[in-house]
Order: sequence, then structure tokens, then C-alpha cells
Amino acid sequence: MLAERMNRVMKELANMELTQMIIVDPLSIYYLTGVYVSPGERFLGLYLNQTGKKVFFVNKLFPIPAELDAEVVWYSDTDPVMDRVAEYVDPSCALGVDKDMRARFLLPIMEVYPQMTVKNASLAVDLTRGQKDGQEREKMRAASRINDQAMDRFRALIHAGVREKEVAEKMLNIYLELGADGFSFEPIVSFGANAADPHHMPDDTVLKDGDCVLFDVGCKKDGYCSDMTRTFYYKAADETSRRIYEIVKRANEAAEALIRPGVPLCELDKAARDVITEAGYGPQFTHRLGHFIGLDEHEFGDVSSVSDWIAAPGMIFSIEPGIYLEGNTGVRIEDLVLVTENGCEVLNHYSKELEIIESYQ
Amino acid sequence: MLAERMNRVMKELANMELTQMIIVDPLSIYYLTGVYVSPGERFLGLYLNQTGKKVFFVNKLFPIPAELDAEVVWYSDTDPVMDRVAEYVDPSCALGVDKDMRARFLLPIMEVYPQMTVKNASLAVDLTRGQKDGQEREKMRAASRINDQAMDRFRALIHAGVREKEVAEKMLNIYLELGADGFSFEPIVSFGANAADPHHMPDDTVLKDGDCVLFDVGCKKDGYCSDMTRTFYYKAADETSRRIYEIVKRANEAAEALIRPGVPLCELDKAARDVITEAGYGPQFTHRLGHFIGLDEHEFGDVSSVSDWIAAPGMIFSIEPGIYLEGNTGVRIEDLVLVTENGCEVLNHYSKELEIIESYQ
Repeated sequence: MLAERMNRVMKELANMELTQMIIVDPLSIYYLTGVYVSPGERFLGLYLNQTGKKVFFVNKLFPIPAELDAEVVWYSDTDPVMDRVAEYVDPSCALGVDKDMRARFLLPIMEVYPQMTVKNASLAVDLTRGQKDGQEREKMRAASRINDQAMDRFRALIHAGVREKEVAEKMLNIYLELGADGFSFEPIVSFGANAADPHHMPDDTVLKDGDCVLFDVGCKKDGYCSDMTRTFYYKAADETSRRIYEIVKRANEAAEALIRPGVPLCELDKAARDVITEAGYGPQFTHRLGHFIGLDEHEFGDVSSVSDWIAAPGMIFSIEPGIYLEGNTGVRIEDLVLVTENGCEVLNHYSKELEIIESYQ
Repeated sequence: MLAERMNRVMKELANMELTQMIIVDPLSIYYLTGVYVSPGERFLGLYLNQTGKKVFFVNKLFPIPAELDAEVVWYSDTDPVMDRVAEYVDPSCALGVDKDMRARFLLPIMEVYPQMTVKNASLAVDLTRGQKDGQEREKMRAASRINDQAMDRFRALIHAGVREKEVAEKMLNIYLELGADGFSFEPIVSFGANAADPHHMPDDTVLKDGDCVLFDVGCKKDGYCSDMTRTFYYKAADETSRRIYEIVKRANEAAEALIRPGVPLCELDKAARDVITEAGYGPQFTHRLGHFIGLDEHEFGDVSSVSDWIAAPGMIFSIEPGIYLEGNTGVRIEDLVLVTENGCEVLNHYSKELEIIESYQ
């Protein structure tokens, strides 16, 4: 499986006319080697060459298994590690680098070889990671299954007088009880006008009658992430809320109905955006329709008007249209979807019908 | 205060003969503007020029306060943001960039201006952030005060049959109860042989009589981090454990005794390392003596044999010697220290005497 992934990456690299690359994203390195190291500010790198050479650069502080299929170069905090890396690079060919490679590691190599062309070659890994294999699809389903169950438990935390933070602080234990390994990202809990900020962080805002209650939440299970948004209403939903809820729901469904191999991802964005724009809320849908997800909560790959990717089997991304009315309210409805061999599997099964929460206390 | 920080950065930049710089570390941007944005994979940048020009580049998704002392350039997910940034850069002068600037943002600017010199100019910000002002020192003291109190509560979680994870999972609530805002990093809880790995993550290992119990823990308070390590023993400590504990304690104290303005940081590393090496455990002290800390748990700046920094008032860093015996046990004793105008203030006050924990259950 790892060898198959590595082959796919090397093939993509060849398509980009590159013979060598340095990967630094710890999750990409894990994806290709099975070894996860969280290096903090220290350098971690996997050098690949079409000759078959693979070199794993890692600080001595981090234990890694002996049976790794790569040459391992250990360095210590006092070694000039980028000089070591430069020794392995072939300056007569262009060097592909990871989009995440930091200036402090990239510039020293460029100084050693000022004539060498350096290219962002992340697509080679990103396209590969973007199409999940069978094992990965199973894990993504499992993480989203837990997320569906968790949504029900989160909804039950809503009662008169509750604060956003209070709700958010109970979420981790619920995920752990349901068998998840932790959050895939810090949960968003937004009441009322706070939902107009798509990235609002839970604070001491107290729930009021008529507020929307937006949960944008996800967990990790076996290394893979889930991510779902649902918007509820507490005790009542006024006319505006009902109107924008139904528009966003239609936008979500319009995009999901189109998904199958061969469809350009920008058309999914357009389908959802058209629904919202025709209803008069185009400017209030302020972000792209979705993002890729897998080992990382946000993986490279956009579902947006400027995406040039085409849906292919194994791709998993979010479909999350929203309408945000500043100072008033907001709605977002988000599912994860898997492009299958001949259509689409929606990984979330939690109801998308407008739901009024009656107080439990 | 923000203006004073900005002046210090511009002065350091001038020392490096640079007229312009792009800062991308969200914490550095917060430090200089008071505005914190966590941009995820999106570009966030602060462009500075000796002309006084300041430009804040931020995705439309993130709300920022109106009274910001900088020109704000908003962009959306579909804008080619690095082209916008390039318009502000003066290609006739070298460009300083943040050490954390990623290849996906750095390479496009270098492609627009292939003749322009690009330098890692992070030191300008790092040296400034490395010397805490009065308000920052107060916040660092407060975070370490909570950490001292928390250590006592963590120690009380130790009892027969407990698992590392069980202990770790109770830590967040203890910090929150004590007034912290959260972890500064995921806590390390290591029993027995697990302590031989300095970065061991808590797992299902069950406590045994005679095990060491290593806590490397920290919290955030008002944006600032604490970080402390203590090593206890459960029911008994064998001869080797007692010997290496006392060596590490002497190493910690030898380094702390030297700290005052003007001392090269490499001499602190040497003082601690000499104690451990003379006792025969040099190869088992596998890392640098310490790291800088503040808004971030690990800030730039090493206390190591290759550091060329000189202690100066306001610097805050860790002193954390250790001895790691693979398959057997490990000890680390870590304090945060503040270099004062004429000496040193140790920010942690939790006892460093060898302590045997008797079971509470």
C-alpha cells in the first residue's frame, strides 16, 4: 500500500518533469512511510528521487521504527542539517519542494545552489493524497459515523442560559466516549449573531430564545478527520432565518446532486452559489464551497470557482454553503462527500431539515 | 507599547541592512499589531517598510478590528493574493522574509522578481520577541504560577494502577479550574521506561512500583505560555534512579546559578552538560539545554552549545537538562527563567528535591 502510494507520487512528479523532491509535511511523510513525527520547529524531510533513492531526515530526538524503507539521516540540534540535505540534492536538475517548506529551510538550500530551479511540487503529493484508497475510505466513513452520533449529543447540550464555551468544553469527552481519538479541529459553537462569523470561536455568549445554534465540528479516528456543520434554532426561528436556512439547504443539495467522476469541482461551487445568488444572498456567501480532507482537516484542493480539478473516484471533500448576515445570524450546512466509481456517497447522515430545539431544562 | 515593539523590529532590520520585510507568523503579527488571526492554510502577512509603510494582508473570512495601525488588504479565496503582495514589494531592494514563510507563498514572489535578493530576516522579530517587556514578564510569571499549582494537583493523580492517558486527560480541567486558558502544549506523562523518550506521548501504560513519573506540562494564560518538568518516583527509587536524579538536579542548578546579563547562552548549556558528562552520562543528554518561550511554547532562540546569543534583560527561556536510559528510565528537570537587569528570576517554584509518591488509593 505504501509502495503503491509512493509510485503514484513518483508518476505525478514525472508528469511535472521533476526527478527529485523534498517533502516536509509530517502528514505527507506519514502517508508515504507510515512513520509520524511531529517535529515542532525542527526539520523533518523526506527526499525522493526517480532513481529510487529515498532519504528520511530526522532529529535524533525522535524515535522512528528500524524497518523504514528509506535511508535515514539523523541529525542533532547542533548539526547544520540543511547542509546535509543539500549533499543529497542533485543541483543539475530542478528541485521540487513541498508547499509547506519554510523559508528557514528552503533559503539555505537555494543559497548552496543559486543556479538550481526550485519549484513548488506539492501537487504530486496532494493529487495522490486527494484520492483516497480503500483503507482510507473506510477510516473516513468511520470518523464521519462518529460525527453523526456526536451531533445528536451536542444538540442535547442546548438549554436555556447555556454559554457557547460550556457546550464546547463538553464536546471532547463526548467524542472520546464515542470512540474518537480527539478533535480534528477546535469546535465552532455559535449562537445568534455570532454565527455571522464563519470562524467564530466559542465564548461566553449566553443562548437566547430565537437564536440559531451553529455547530461546525469534527473528530479524528485512526488518523482520519471528520467535519460537519449543522444549524439549529432555539425555541423559534424567525422568517429571515427560515428563508436563509432553506436556501442554504437547497444549495447544499444542488451541489451534492451533481457529484460524480468527471465533473469539474468549480461546477459544484457554481451550482450552490447560483442557488444562493438567485435568492439574493450572493455577497453573503463569503467563502469557497468546500475543501479536501483526510489525514488533515484541511487538505490541499478547493471546491471553489477557481478550482481546475475534476472529480475522480476516492476524492473526499466538504460541501458547505453558508449565508452570513452580519450582526444578525448565519447558516451553514456541511457534509463530507466521497466521489465513488459512478457517483457520490455522502458520508454524513444527520438530518438537514430545519429543527427547532425546545429547552430540556 | 505596540509602537515601541515595531520600532525595535525596524531597528533590528536596519542592522541587517534591510528596508522591507514580510512577517507571516500569526503570533509575531499579534505581537506587533494586537490582532490575532489563525489563518489555517490561507495567507496572512504583515509587510513592513522603513518608509513607515505597514500593510496587513488578510483573507476576507477573518474579521479584524477597524482601528488597526496599518493599511489593510483584504482578499478572497479566489484572488491571486501573492500578486497583490508583490505589488507592495520594492524589487530594487532585498526582501526580508519570516523564517516560517511557506514555499507556496514565497516562491510566487521570487518568480515575479527573479533578480531580487530574499533573506531570512526573522531575527529582527525574534530578537525583539526574545526580550520581554514589563507587561509580558508579568504574564509569564502568572502562567508559571498556575503551572506550579497545577504540578501539585497532577502529582495527586498518581495512584496504583493508573494509566498515563488517564492522568493526562484530567490535566486540562485542572488548568482551567486554576484560571488558565488551556494547554500551552499537549502534556507529556511518562512512566518508567517511557521517560527515556523525551517526547513520549501518554498512552495506556500502567504505573508500576519503582517507576519514575515524569510530567512535562504547561498552560497558557492571557496568551503567554508556561512549561515545567518534574520527575517523581512511585513508591521507590532504585540506586540508578537516585544517582541520575541528583546529577540532573545539579546540572539544572549549575546552569541557573550562572544566569545574568552578558553571559553567552552556550555557556549555560556547557555548565549543565559538563555536570552530566563528568558523571558519565554525556551521551544520554540528547538535546539542547533549553528554548525560548513566550506567546509560543517554543520561540526562536536556543540555549545550546551552538547558540551565539548573549543573555540580556527580559529574555525568558527553559533550563531543562535530562538523562535518558533507553528501556529503563529517564529524568528531566525544567524551569523557566527570566534574565533580570542584574541576575535571574526562576519563574517556577515547585520543589526539585527527589520525591517518592506513596499511593493515595
